[in-house]
This record gives sequence, structure tokens and C-alpha cells, in this order.
Amino acid sequence: MEREVDVAIIGAGTAGLNAMAQVRRAGKTFVLIDGGELGTTCARVGCMPSKAFIQVAEDFHRRHIFERHRIEGGEGLSLQLAEAMEHVRDLRDLFVDRVLQGSTDEMGDELIRGYARFVSPNELEVDGQRIRARRIVIATGSRPVLPEAWRAFGDRVLTTDDFFEQETLPPRMAVIGLGVIGLELGQALARMGVAVTGIDAAETVSGLSDPVVSAEVVKVLGDEFPLWLGHPAELSRDGDALRVQAGEQAVTVDKVLVAMGRRPNLEHLGLEEIGIPLDARGMPPHDPHTMQILDLPIFIAGDVSGERPILHEAGDEGKIAGYNASHDEIRAFRRKTPLAITFCDPNVVQVGRSWSELAGRDDVAVGEMRLGPVGRALIMGKNKGIIRVYAEKAGGRLLGAALFSVRGENLGHLLAWAMEQELTVWDALRMPFYHPVIEEALQAAFYNLSGGCEGRPEPPIELRPLSPADA
Amino acid sequence: MEREVDVAIIGAGTAGLNAMAQVRRAGKTFVLIDGGELGTTCARVGCMPSKAFIQVAEDFHRRHIFERHRIEGGEGLSLQLAEAMEHVRDLRDLFVDRVLQGSTDEMGDELIRGYARFVSPNELEVDGQRIRARRIVIATGSRPVLPEAWRAFGDRVLTTDDFFEQETLPPRMAVIGLGVIGLELGQALARMGVAVTGIDAAETVSGLSDPVVSAEVVKVLGDEFPLWLGHPAELSRDGDALRVQAGEQAVTVDKVLVAMGRRPNLEHLGLEEIGIPLDARGMPPHDPHTMQILDLPIFIAGDVSGERPILHEAGDEGKIAGYNASHDEIRAFRRKTPLAITFCDPNVVQVGRSWSELAGRDDVAVGEMRLGPVGRALIMGKNKGIIRVYAEKAGGRLLGAALFSVRGENLGHLLAWAMEQELTVWDALRMPFYHPVIEEALQAAFYNLSGGCEGRPEPPIELRPLSPADA
Repeated sequence: MEREVDVAIIGAGTAGLNAMAQVRRAGKTFVLIDGGELGTTCARVGCMPSKAFIQVAEDFHRRHIFERHRIEGGEGLSLQLAEAMEHVRDLRDLFVDRVLQGSTDEMGDELIRGYARFVSPNELEVDGQRIRARRIVIATGSRPVLPEAWRAFGDRVLTTDDFFEQETLPPRMAVIGLGVIGLELGQALARMGVAVTGIDAAETVSGLSDPVVSAEVVKVLGDEFPLWLGHPAELSRDGDALRVQAGEQAVTVDKVLVAMGRRPNLEHLGLEEIGIPLDARGMPPHDPHTMQILDLPIFIAGDVSGERPILHEAGDEGKIAGYNASHDEIRAFRRKTPLAITFCDPNVVQVGRSWSELAGRDDVAVGEMRLGPVGRALIMGKNKGIIRVYAEKAGGRLLGAALFSVRGENLGHLLAWAMEQELTVWDALRMPFYHPVIEEALQAAFYNLSGGCEGRPEPPIELRPLSPADA
Repeated sequence: MEREVDVAIIGAGTAGLNAMAQVRRAGKTFVLIDGGELGTTCARVGCMPSKAFIQVAEDFHRRHIFERHRIEGGEGLSLQLAEAMEHVRDLRDLFVDRVLQGSTDEMGDELIRGYARFVSPNELEVDGQRIRARRIVIATGSRPVLPEAWRAFGDRVLTTDDFFEQETLPPRMAVIGLGVIGLELGQALARMGVAVTGIDAAETVSGLSDPVVSAEVVKVLGDEFPLWLGHPAELSRDGDALRVQAGEQAVTVDKVLVAMGRRPNLEHLGLEEIGIPLDARGMPPHDPHTMQILDLPIFIAGDVSGERPILHEAGDEGKIAGYNASHDEIRAFRRKTPLAITFCDPNVVQVGRSWSELAGRDDVAVGEMRLGPVGRALIMGKNKGIIRVYAEKAGGRLLGAALFSVRGENLGHLLAWAMEQELTVWDALRMPFYHPVIEEALQAAFYNLSGGCEGRPEPPIELRPLSPADA
């Protein structure tokens, strides 16, 4: 049995669904192929359940402000872990249902349930069925990294695939890997009363390369739960429990959450068999502006591309791949200003160029502001953290930022939009900053940054002279 | 005794201090004259203590989410009102001290304590002392409106001048005037357990002119405490208490907070005596871009100018007035995109042009998004509200917005900055929106808005084609 379509999309996650929307809009015939569980990684095991989990932890943790605010009785509060996990799953199910309702639920035979394998650059095989397509989009997503040897520890070792399925949480846990997910869930677990140890082989957390911000994150979050950095974790059995060792330190825990990143789902597609070379990371070479692999009729999008494993970028890649898969002319698109948020408290945010990308450049100025004295942060009782912003010394064009701040997710958008517009620090200082708001911390960082930049406009009063165009 | 300076500044509040900084930078001689309590309105009786008060109320109110989040014991929480008021004053004192330390504390005879009166456009009298100045800045601020007849009710009638001095709060209150302050404090009082009635002669609250957003605010906040709209309040004695009547409705309360706006402190300056005509509102005519009064050597700035009684605008006016008072050439400056925030929960925010300014124009498109289904808002348990955005139909340039939304204060900045940059709805849709964040509600409102706008760029995939300049 053979079937012919304009476009075949492998994977019904965020990237695949966005690609499908473009193909539909272009009026092309298509199939969407997925052999796994439907619903996106984001809704099933990623952003959404983790945010619901964090929200519960944050609300429970907030009781520590009660004494300052003269609210009595906080010591009588208790969190029902098993029921809280149920609440998280309830919300998760709602979000997954929404994704399905908006996409695959009503699809007929354009949805093929099965795993695809390339037979040629224009041909796939799915459970014995041949599908010929003018163009093919690979959007197969990713899965959590889990060292093979650790599988022997069975259900004492969790990834995000099973974490939210836990009926309840044990008294002692270790979180191995302190990137976005490890840091978010590790802090939330600690706040829920689990004795958590956070471990990472790197010396930094959350992928932060700015050493000042990173040190502040480690110090502040390290006060909530121990962070062991710089040594890889080793696991061994300890009776019914697990012993986790990292360098000289060791701890016995009931379960381990492995949050060591995610791996693209590429191996079973048969790319090498059809002659596509894979690079050192096992990735097919592709252009991030067109999502095309070499000059083949094949496009790659979303987590599987291994580049920007976050939802809005997966969406963009899906759109680009879907657009190019359904138009004769291949178009290159500008990618967005990088924005990465870890929803720990305070938020960790990176925008634009990272410290490591700018390292060693002597034409870059840095400005910083600690949250300590910021009025609104003080009022909220959330004045830990630091903001660092980078700009070109000549002219002051904003280049990047690293934030560890309350409302960091919101400041991150303001910064990313400013960088999309190529604003300078002088432009930014002329924007409205209300009072009292956390944005004023950013304003203070901009003032500090401006001291290292040239090109201050005249007159130096942070207001634009009125021009005839304003009339 | 006569004294001569380049610039005399009347008023040591936010506008006056900002003016002083400009005069200092220009190297001019000056005096700063203030007869009232030092420390800004903002720090003493405005933004800062009100935010501290609201924060306590919000933390206490949050116990209502506990059941959903499976946190037990919330019913055992109680708020110690008198101690909470002390906490608010402690924070307030900290902020006032900071203002003083950063400004008047170290000043010698450049600070004159007393009330100034114009003798001529270049001459002031302060407690018998004559001060000749080449230029004069009026930055005398404002005071709460309090109907004369109500003074008879003594300390049963409060304004923000005495509200934060209350040792504790009585069981029953009315808040008369539901602008920014009335809405913020009214809701906070209700959340702290005071039986509050909110009353306004207008049919809307918080100065909102968008009828859809206004209706939503009235509905949602009206569920927290009764809002009586459309009738002016009348007060009468009721034993030891006060009877408050508005239209057909009446309530007996222990105290009344009058929040009917603020009046510029102009009367005692003697402006008319030196020949300055006052308009119907009692204001001297001035140019909001130069802050100059007519073509006199007199400038006006801050709340007293009666235009934009919020801190960052008072700061801008102070800068403009101070700059122009210390330079020969009078310069005109562009004023910022209007941004007004009421820090109730959800926040009420107006950005750019208001609904009433755009009323009747058929070249304006409106987009809206309710917070109900927004993922992150749902997770936070804060998904009440609505966002409305306005743009030019031809081309989609953003014109204004009215928001009633969690994190509205942050979205307001994003919108105000976008309008400062004159972004179109198409530009805005190409900006990064992370997931899951409240900014996605704004994104949805933009999508909705774009349906009514022309000028959608090709290709329609919310990504900018790569240009040679990006290389």
C-alpha cells in the first residue's frame, strides 16, 4: 500500500502541529505521523505540569512571610503531598485535552499512528505502509537523558516522564542535573518539605554563564536546599534506598530525579541509511533560518533540532519548516532574540547574548543592580537577586542580560523586545518606568550600564527632545 | 534680607528634587524651599505605604487558594491589624528616610524651610525673606480633596494623609471615590477583614473609560466588596458612627476614607497677584513639553501641574522644568506614552490612548482576550480579567490598551515600550512570547486585534524574513 502527499510531518508535538498549520494554510495535502502518546511534551511532562507543581510549592512556601506581615497561624499549615500531585495531574490533563482538541482529535486519516522510517528522501515507511511525500518535516521531539546503568535502579530513578505520575513524594530525594528542570523541580520539592539534594557535574546552574549571577543563584537557592556542584553523581543501592555520591559528598535518598537534559529522537529515523551525514552530536546538518537539512526536501523542527528546546522556538521552527515544506521557494527567517527562563524563585533569565558569547570582548560594558534595595521587591519580601545587562560600549546597543530576580520572566520579555528593536541603553532609559515596580531594578541596571557606554544623547535628561514629527 | 540665586525651586517632593538635580548639574546657584513635611508624597502617604498595605492584604487573601492547592490549615490564619499597620509604617519610614538621605538631609542653607509666595515673576517671599531668582520652579505638589462640610466629622473621616497613621482599622468602613487610591485601599481593606463599601459618583472605577474592561472590573471587584456607583455619597452622624448614603443605598460605618482625588497646592502662591491668569480649573496655563508658564521665567512640575499625577511623570516634569530653569534656551521634550496602573488584584492598567480619546473613530480596531483560559493564569488561580488593545486599522499601529489582568503592571510596561517604539500589531506578534507566561494573554489579544487590521506582512507566519542586514 502506498500513499502520496505533498508533505509528511513526523511528530505531532508543538513543532509538528505548527508545521501542519502552515501546510494546511498553503492548501497542500499532508499526513501527520506519530507513534507515541499524543499531546505535546510541554503539556504532558514539561512546562505545564511543572508550573502547576511550582505554584503549589510557592504558595506553601509563602507562609514564611506571614510573621513579617503579622499573619498568625502559619505554623499550622500543612501540605497534602499526594493530593497536591493529583491537583497537578488534573491541571495537566486539562492542558493535554486542550492540545488534543485543538489538533489531532478531529483528524481523520491525515493522522497516522505509528513510527516512521526514511526509505528515501521522499519516502517513509510506517508499519509497512509506504508514504511518498514531496517534502518531509522531522519533528520527533526529544526524551529525557537517562544513563543506561541507572535503569537497573527501577522506579527509584525518575525522569520528568514519570515524575508527575508519582502518587506521592518520598521524604528524601536527589535531583541530578541543575539545568532549568532540575532547578525548578528541586526548589519546589524542597519547599514542599522533601529533603532534596541538588547535584550537577558543572560548577554553575541553569545554564548560566554569567559568573556573578550564577554565584548569586547558587548562594540564594543553596540556602533552600543543598547544591553540590562540580562533581558527577554516582548511584548505588543502599538497602531499599539509593546512595548518591558526588565528589566527597554522599547522601541516602528514596528516589532520584534525573534532569540531565533531553536527547533528540533521531536514531530510529534511518537518516544515515539514506545518506544524511550526522555531526559529532549525532545531528543532521541544517540551516536554523530555513530548517532545511542540506539541500534535501527534508526539514527539521522543534526539540529534535537540538537547538532551542523551548516551546515558542519549537513553534517558530515548526512554522518555518511547515512554510518551506509547502512552498517551492525556500525562505530564510530571522530567529528571535534568545530568551530562556527558569521558573525558580527568584526567576533565572537569560536574554540575548550570553556572558560566554561576549567573553573576552573589551568593547562590551556591563551594568548591574542588586534587588536588595529595590522598593517594591522589599515590600514583596522578595528582594534577593541581581540583574546584569550587557551593551556595546560604543553607542550602548543592548546585547544581552542575565537576571536572577522576582518577576524575572516579565523583565525578560521587556529586555527581549528591546533587543529585538535594537534599542540602546539610552533608548531604554527614556522608556516609561512606573513606580513602585520591579522594572525599576532594570532601570537602575541601565543607569549603571550607561556609565560604561559612550554616545549619551544631549541633553542628558532621559527625555527625547520634541521633534516636528511628534506634533 | 534679600538673597539672589539662579533658580528657586518651591517644593522638595519628587518633582522639586528632580528639578534640583538638573539645576545642580548645570552648575547654577539655587534654593529649595519647602514649608511642609519633607519626604515625597509617594514615600510618605502614596505609592509606598499603599503598596506595603496591599501586599499584606494580598498575602492574607491568598489563603483562599489553599484548598485548591491542598494546603491545610488556612482557616486557622488570622491577621493582626494593628501590628500590620505598624509593619506598613516601618516600611514607610524606611522609604522616607531614604528619600531624605538622598536629598535634603545633607543640605545647608540651600534648603529653606518655609512657605513661598510670589512677589514678582522673579521674586519670592518666604517668612519675610526675599529671594530673587532668574528662574523659579513651582513644584508644590497636591493634597487630598476633602469636602469642607465633612471636616465636622473629625477623625471619623480620613484621607491618605492620616490613613496610614491609624493604629488599627475599625470593623466597618466606607471608601468614597474609587479611583486608583480608593480601589487599591478599598480592596485591601476588604481582604483584611474590614467590612468595606466602595462608593463613587461615577459609573466607572479607576478612571477607566473602556466600557468592557470597566464592567469586568466592577463585576470582579464587586464580588469582594460592594461597589455603589453612579451616586454621590452623603455623610451624616449616626450615634458614634457615620451614615453614608448614596442614591437609595445607605450603610453605617465607623470610619470613612475619602479618596476623591488630589488638589494642586497653588492657592497660596499668589500667582494671580503677579498677573498670571488661572484657567477654569484654577491652573496657570503652561506647556507640558517645556513646563513653562506662558513666557514667564516660571516653570511648573509634578502633581501641582494637575496633569499626570504619578511619580515617574512628576520626575520627568521636574527634569524638564529644572533643565529649562537652568538653561537660556527653553527646550521642548516629548512626553512619555501614558501609563497608569491601579495596583488592585488583578491590576487595572491603561496605556497610551484611552477608549474615550478614541471614541467614535471608525479607523480604530479593537482586540481582546479574557484571562479565563490563559494557561499560566489558570495555574496561578488568577484567571479573572480581560485585556483590550487598540490599533489603527490601516497598518495596525498600536494606539492604546486597557487591562484588567494579573501581572498587568508588567504587561503595561511591555505595551508602553512598544507604543514608544510605534510598533504595529504585526511587529508585536513577531516578538518573543515565552510559555507559559501571562504575556501570552497579550499575544492572544494581539492576534484578535490583527483580525481587524490591514497591512499584514508576507509571509504571514509571525517571523521576519532574514535580511542581508541580519548576517
